Amino acid sequence: VHPEKGFFDDVIVDPLPGRAAKPRQAGLTMVIDKGLGLSETEGILLTAHAYVDYWKLPFGTPALYGRGYLSQKVALLRRFGLDVYPGGTFLEVAVLQGRVEPFLDRCREVGFTAVEVSDGTIPLDPRERRRIIREARNRGFRVVTEIGKKEAHLRLTHAQIHRAIEEDLAAGAERIIVEGRESGVAVGVYDEAGAIQEDELAKILSGVKDPATLIWEAPQKSQQEDFILRFGPNVNLGNIPPGELLALEALRRGLRGDTLKACLPKAAGEAR
Amino acid sequence: VHPEKGFFDDVIVDPLPGRAAKPRQAGLTMVIDKGLGLSETEGILLTAHAYVDYWKLPFGTPALYGRGYLSQKVALLRRFGLDVYPGGTFLEVAVLQGRVEPFLDRCREVGFTAVEVSDGTIPLDPRERRRIIREARNRGFRVVTEIGKKEAHLRLTHAQIHRAIEEDLAAGAERIIVEGRESGVAVGVYDEAGAIQEDELAKILSGVKDPATLIWEAPQKSQQEDFILRFGPNVNLGNIPPGELLALEALRRGLRGDTLKACLPKAAGEAR
Amino acid sequence: VHPEKGFFDDVIVDPLPGRAAKPRQAGLTMVIDKGLGLSETEGILLTAHAYVDYWKLPFGTPALYGRGYLSQKVALLRRFGLDVYPGGTFLEVAVLQGRVEPFLDRCREVGFTAVEVSDGTIPLDPRERRRIIREARNRGFRVVTEIGKKEAHLRLTHAQIHRAIEEDLAAGAERIIVEGRESGVAVGVYDEAGAIQEDELAKILSGVKDPATLIWEAPQKSQQEDFILRFGPNVNLGNIPPGELLALEALRRGLRGDTLKACLPKAAGEAR
Repeated sequence: VHPEKGFFDDVIVDPLPGRAAKPRQAGLTMVIDKGLGLSETEGILLTAHAYVDYWKLPFGTPALYGRGYLSQKVALLRRFGLDVYPGGTFLEVAVLQGRVEPFLDRCREVGFTAVEVSDGTIPLDPRERRRIIREARNRGFRVVTEIGKKEAHLRLTHAQIHRAIEEDLAAGAERIIVEGRESGVAVGVYDEAGAIQEDELAKILSGVKDPATLIWEAPQKSQQEDFILRFGPNVNLGNIPPGELLALEALRRGLRGDTLKACLPKAAGEAR
Repeated sequence: VHPEKGFFDDVIVDPLPGRAAKPRQAGLTMVIDKGLGLSETEGILLTAHAYVDYWKLPFGTPALYGRGYLSQKVALLRRFGLDVYPGGTFLEVAVLQGRVEPFLDRCREVGFTAVEVSDGTIPLDPRERRRIIREARNRGFRVVTEIGKKEAHLRLTHAQIHRAIEEDLAAGAERIIVEGRESGVAVGVYDEAGAIQEDELAKILSGVKDPATLIWEAPQKSQQEDFILRFGPNVNLGNIPPGELLALEALRRGLRGDTLKACLPKAAGEAR
Repeated sequence: VHPEKGFFDDVIVDPLPGRAAKPRQAGLTMVIDKGLGLSETEGILLTAHAYVDYWKLPFGTPALYGRGYLSQKVALLRRFGLDVYPGGTFLEVAVLQGRVEPFLDRCREVGFTAVEVSDGTIPLDPRERRRIIREARNRGFRVVTEIGKKEAHLRLTHAQIHRAIEEDLAAGAERIIVEGRESGVAVGVYDEAGAIQEDELAKILSGVKDPATLIWEAPQKSQQEDFILRFGPNVNLGNIPPGELLALEALRRGLRGDTLKACLPKAAGEAR
């Protein structure tokens, strides 16, 4: 599936320039899909496949689909060139039950192209974490890992975060997701109102060599806007609801008021 | 339509055990569908029919569909074995207009299998309420009733709630819905922030013989989580948005962080 | 496409009477569609086409569809008799880039039947605004304009609002949209909680000859309810999510508790 020409390509240029096209190494968008049907999934892909890279079937939802339907859905997503993977919590359950290897084998059968390794809910020994990453890589999966606890009172220290990122990448992870949950509230870099906490953000970034390895879970529009205004159109963003893909892409390109305003000559926005 | 085997059935067991399969008498899920098209409805049913029992077309929305389309939609839902019914407010309008009998007859023509009897907005004499329940039963409908006023200042006393529940069941109601509205805020057992008020919950339960007769309207994820952690995977929950069915089922089974955490060995969740 | 008869037409009358049918000059509903696929769009139209008049593809999202898919989508919407137009911000980008004429020509090629002229983000000289309205009219578009700044600190004076409304109508605009954004918070007539500010509303209305020329962006249910209770079932409302069309129509007709309560005999709502 190739991106098709748009009606306005030769009329309007993106106000926020530099948005990367596929295949791209930055500016990745990860969707959280809590159970769309096949035809709805196809409709979204036909409108927005060029604007999404990772497609997550979150939590243990892959266990809840019938075999035939899940196979078809994953095959559809792969036909559009996406990486598809189950939620990290599902692998955490496999860890708890001592079933990591059969779990990974089954993910292969389903057709998933990637897996997420996390310890948002369970405790996970760093050596075991690295071993799982390598097991997944050995089976041909791309690996994303996630940093962060789902419960606010279990917040990691920055030293822990930096060490985990380095170790994950060394073990073969491609990307590191910074936890934001489906809500974007009181978790990761977000405060109780969903606003980015400056010092949290700065401290995480202080120990990261290449910020493009990070994917920020940013389910709320204000969070997406904030990341784009800080880091530009090619920041990696995750936990995007499927129906928000075009709206997010418009934000990335300055084609929406919230980011267009940053492209105005300094005085222009203030006058009338 | 039979539930299909999943890919992970023989690899992972539900962390929160005991989730009832269909046909089930507890663990019911009721969806609120504000107007999905046929193909979208079918897509959701194909992914999630095993996880939903009642399908509500809320308020007076059944009046707003064309005849042919509504017939097809209700037939589709019945083909998947669901009970389908119009919102309680619609019957309240029929009461106000003295049209209960023709209303029930027309519901039969549509193909609805159940009706909801409520007085969330109108005043309704208890004898008239019982009469309507019996009229509906006589026409072959399953009957659910709803307890609770939509306006916070009209809150019922617990004696009123307990009497209404007993009388409804005696008159032939199968289930009693506890009002939570579409929002889950400042209504029924919820406070202004959508949190469950302990004393309200306790008082309602104090007068109820079999809590499995109650369906809790719980539109917010935090509310679903709270009910599952209190009462287990087979609590009856209602006003679930159609796109949340797999996410709710994952919650019920401990396949999502919010309920998985309750399945960890006591110390495990705290350590890293 | 003609409206089909409903099952309850001869059984129930609308509690809130007087809802206008199509073709109508008041009671218009404008949808904000952030990227629905074709089959989902068709499903919504088959259930709700009688309850929607304007269909907006907001911000610059029209730039992000493939040509073929966008053509098909707009043609589908037109087949149901709707006016279809791109978000006002998209035209603002064209203004910034000095590309208004080619932009309008391209909108014609796409099949859009209307355009929105706004200055929610950019500054726009009133003469230039009137010139764009006339350019659009000359190309056969219906024109809606929008009044209001997206940023709270740029709020217009009421004299500015009244002059802009008069000038827009004189230049050929059919309707004036009062900015409410997708959120309905801290913008236009809404305060930080999304509630209507009485004095803002009164001051806007004080200078408007025919309130039916105004379309109020009212994305939240409480806002829709408030407008219907103030101005009746035929108030013009915009930025309605596509999945809310039946719910909104039920509100307009008193077929939902929030507006049904206003139709009760005075004492009735209070008693039990």
